[in-house]
Amino acid sequence: MANQPAFELFAFWRSSATFRVRVALQLKGLSAHERIVDIDGGEQRSAAFLAINPLGGLPALQVDSGPPLTQSLAILEYLEELQPDPPLLPSDLLGRARVRSIAAMLASDTHPLITPRVKKYLTTSAGFDDAAWRAWQVQWFTTGMTAVEQRLASDAVPGKFCHGDTPTLADVCLASVIAVMRVFKISVANIPTIDRVMAACDAHAAFAAADPMRQVGAPAR
Amino acid sequence: MANQPAFELFAFWRSSATFRVRVALQLKGLSAHERIVDIDGGEQRSAAFLAINPLGGLPALQVDSGPPLTQSLAILEYLEELQPDPPLLPSDLLGRARVRSIAAMLASDTHPLITPRVKKYLTTSAGFDDAAWRAWQVQWFTTGMTAVEQRLASDAVPGKFCHGDTPTLADVCLASVIAVMRVFKISVANIPTIDRVMAACDAHAAFAAADPMRQVGAPAR
Repeated sequence: MANQPAFELFAFWRSSATFRVRVALQLKGLSAHERIVDIDGGEQRSAAFLAINPLGGLPALQVDSGPPLTQSLAILEYLEELQPDPPLLPSDLLGRARVRSIAAMLASDTHPLITPRVKKYLTTSAGFDDAAWRAWQVQWFTTGMTAVEQRLASDAVPGKFCHGDTPTLADVCLASVIAVMRVFKISVANIPTIDRVMAACDAHAAFAAADPMRQVGAPAR
Repeated sequence: MANQPAFELFAFWRSSATFRVRVALQLKGLSAHERIVDIDGGEQRSAAFLAINPLGGLPALQVDSGPPLTQSLAILEYLEELQPDPPLLPSDLLGRARVRSIAAMLASDTHPLITPRVKKYLTTSAGFDDAAWRAWQVQWFTTGMTAVEQRLASDAVPGKFCHGDTPTLADVCLASVIAVMRVFKISVANIPTIDRVMAACDAHAAFAAADPMRQVGAPAR
């Protein structure tokens, strides 16, 4: 995009929600300067970052010198409106609702359950040990993926992605959750439609470029 | 709206996400026939309802005879596109991102943590008693409301609602979480901006009509 706004993306290598924005920027041909917020070091809870996002979550996207945008779904919709081509939502109303619904099943009803702030509460205030936290992660990844699998299979739309032959916000959110599942070495069985869609995402340059393991700060493979 | 599609809304009196759709329908002058799904009786986990929403969450909106739309944020965006007047999003890109961000802070990062499926897991698999569940609810309502308060105060937009003098999706989602906090008799201190916005919502007929206590199935006051 010619003359795009100046983007500063507050990011971390492993962050699932940051992955979504990285993929969308790639798909739209937009670029952002990344500023690392070290989640493992608790930097998202620093006063400096809480002034940017009072929920202490990544990503945040500063546009020129304005107040930072937060919440990945809001940022994705912003990028879609700023740079409509290529579209990440279909053109028909019901199709758009389907794509946004699948995106929200993952970004709203799955991922928020396994964020650092939830881990902190469960391990410090609720007595979860490593095994209990792992079981919690597996529970919600499995619930979310199994439900998305049923959705994709029951009201199937032809094409190699979730909704046709080009990526949409549904694929961006699906791949974002799978990406952190891979980091945590968690897999869910019996999701053949998702596996097929993920093969298409993995083969797409925009998704490959957002692979957590390829980001600054990622551990060596 | 003349000749609106036939809407069947799968609903429950107390459901926060159903509240959002009820308010939006009211604001848009649209109507839906409600079909009650008894969450207290576990009906959302019945095979019949899981075929409608494999995540077992409310609401779902059937449009004519098509596959039901799920996820409140997706349904709200659908209603906004179907019936743009009155708008529930501002017209400028950054304003739209701000409104969607506040909506997601509540609908994505707060409410999913206190849903029935999470309660079921914590009370059956993680040993939470009533007090522990209550502390969990208070934790996430407080975290969400405190963050939204900071957001509203730090990048304030003039007007009696979250973003101007007419309700937006931010107000719909804010009121939806406050509505269930009232049902559970949970309040959060030191949120003066939210209290002010809620006074405007409470005085608005569309929000009043969606009050959980006024819905079919609600307990007598």
